Amino acid sequence: MILGVDPSLRGTGYGVIRLARPHPAVLCQGTISCPATWPHSRCLVKISEILREVLREQHPTVCIVEGLFYAQNLQTAIVMGEARGAALAVIAEAGLEIFEIAPRKVKQAIVGYGAAQKSAVAKMVQRLLNLPKPPAPDAADALALALTHAHENSRHHLTAPKRV
Amino acid sequence: MILGVDPSLRGTGYGVIRLARPHPAVLCQGTISCPATWPHSRCLVKISEILREVLREQHPTVCIVEGLFYAQNLQTAIVMGEARGAALAVIAEAGLEIFEIAPRKVKQAIVGYGAAQKSAVAKMVQRLLNLPKPPAPDAADALALALTHAHENSRHHLTAPKRV
Repeated sequence: MILGVDPSLRGTGYGVIRLARPHPAVLCQGTISCPATWPHSRCLVKISEILREVLREQHPTVCIVEGLFYAQNLQTAIVMGEARGAALAVIAEAGLEIFEIAPRKVKQAIVGYGAAQKSAVAKMVQRLLNLPKPPAPDAADALALALTHAHENSRHHLTAPKRV
Repeated sequence: MILGVDPSLRGTGYGVIRLARPHPAVLCQGTISCPATWPHSRCLVKISEILREVLREQHPTVCIVEGLFYAQNLQTAIVMGEARGAALAVIAEAGLEIFEIAPRKVKQAIVGYGAAQKSAVAKMVQRLLNLPKPPAPDAADALALALTHAHENSRHHLTAPKRV
């Protein structure tokens, strides 16, 4: 089982998939939403708690997080890093192997186009996972990460994924 | 009791002080060191584990972290954010109030000069806390944060400290 996580202070997407025929199965997916009025630390606690719950309930063995960041400035980068740090700490503490994949590579793998829009990713994720409707944007990104890893691992590799 | 934390992926400083006469007492202090060869997630787990241990043993009620960052670039900012996120999640989960103070303000309060060198801060921290020798640099920064908060709270304030 593969956990995909797209960490962000106000809206962390997550999703767990299990490889199956004719298509992978979604075991859970969602967005960890935190109001803009909450102090950072409260958001980080919520991110830790929800992810810990997902890990306890689903027992994924490998986690994929978004690898390259396009932060607009240093302040944004630090805040993205905070969410990522809280998430990675909990996931690594549960013993999962963690890899990262660059967003462009995910879009390339899922939509076939590295600069694809978020809505296009969500629609392809819906189709690939046979979901009744497209997942919310952050959850779709997380599921796309998990799907990309599944896809890559089904082929021979010349380059190993980057461990974080 | 006041916990000061200076988060960084490879060397997080921490220290707990208790207000006392003739000078505040150091209950514990140290640096959470992680080799450059470790993946980020392993460092984040160590940061979480050690801080959780400190919280369990010392029961501080308030935490001060460094507030403003001088990251050289986006990559550095994200890595600083990761360490900060892992630390804040654990500290907030334990129920502490968390405040941040800018590094310049700490140097101003401890050394009397906002651009003071690290070694000057460590020497003043040694003197103020009556320690046998200057603490290691990262631990000294953490103790300086705790001391600055103690100092500020002993006076009347026009501006409240910033909660994170």
